Amino acid sequence: MLPKALTNLIDSLQGLPGVGPRTAERYAYYLYKSGLENIDRLNSSLTGLKTGIKLCPVTYTLIDSDQQISPLYSSDERDKKLIAVVEDVFDVAALENTKSFDGTYHVLGGLISPIDNMTPESLHIPDLVERVKKDKVKEIIIATNASIEGESTARYIQNQLEDSKVKVTRLAQGLPIGLDIEYADQITLSRALEGRRAL
Amino acid sequence: MLPKALTNLIDSLQGLPGVGPRTAERYAYYLYKSGLENIDRLNSSLTGLKTGIKLCPVTYTLIDSDQQISPLYSSDERDKKLIAVVEDVFDVAALENTKSFDGTYHVLGGLISPIDNMTPESLHIPDLVERVKKDKVKEIIIATNASIEGESTARYIQNQLEDSKVKVTRLAQGLPIGLDIEYADQITLSRALEGRRAL
Repeated sequence: MLPKALTNLIDSLQGLPGVGPRTAERYAYYLYKSGLENIDRLNSSLTGLKTGIKLCPVTYTLIDSDQQISPLYSSDERDKKLIAVVEDVFDVAALENTKSFDGTYHVLGGLISPIDNMTPESLHIPDLVERVKKDKVKEIIIATNASIEGESTARYIQNQLEDSKVKVTRLAQGLPIGLDIEYADQITLSRALEGRRAL
Repeated sequence: MLPKALTNLIDSLQGLPGVGPRTAERYAYYLYKSGLENIDRLNSSLTGLKTGIKLCPVTYTLIDSDQQISPLYSSDERDKKLIAVVEDVFDVAALENTKSFDGTYHVLGGLISPIDNMTPESLHIPDLVERVKKDKVKEIIIATNASIEGESTARYIQNQLEDSKVKVTRLAQGLPIGLDIEYADQITLSRALEGRRAL
């Protein structure tokens, strides 16, 4: 018994991750009540999303469409000889938020996974090998997920870089902060044991 | 370090009820990843929201802008002599979802609340008095919230309709389904006692 315009919006909002019918309804009601200004603002930021973003040709991170190269690479404050290799563009934001990394990035655009048709050729791995040579990179931190695909992608990259002198490292695996050992899964716990460090 | 287009969208999405920075980020990433089609769909349903809805001139419920009168009034299946009086347009959907009401509606557009500058004159109460006469209404169910404003609005409407023969009722107040008596607040419990019924 709602107007079509509202049910349409509720349907579209249900596409968002974790948004069911009740939440979509709540968002739609809110947008309707909150009036034109809010609707226009959301509309124009959605439109901006379609035209305002492109990929940096060096790091493959997201940049404004009027930028040439990501400041994560071009800035003098970033160490070009240290590269964090990540699966996708949003992993960059997660690492940046730690504020404890001053190197630069290389986004693979996926992980090797034959089932999903992701072969090494479809990722940005050849570019990475190029960069290592060109920028005389000293260390590559492979910051892929601790999953089977993450592991095999890490191994593959390591093999590709065997001939160069670059040091290849991997993010530590172990107990996440705040997790009780009691509740940690077997694999996490055995990785934490393997990776134990002297105090 | 995210492109402006993304931070803009994250900001706009944070306007939604209960959406903090992390959730807004998740929605924005999803929209960016899910591609043009999803963005266009959400865009056009937002635009639809601005032009596709108007108020029914009889019930003040929401209708499609190409409709004249709400089917909640005009349909033969709705009993025009039974009116549920509600605070706002979205209360109608809640009552319709119960599927146990076949009367029609009257949306007040608010509740009497001198603090918020809501006087009886700013609500659709005079129209309600008109409708009661015109449609020879037999019963008015006042379905306002169980709050001070809800109560005083109910009393005011009752006073306005004293001269007519219409029966004025109020939604039952008592224990919500599933609530343990132990956890019920004093007022709810005393209303439940007052409204007790013979088994």
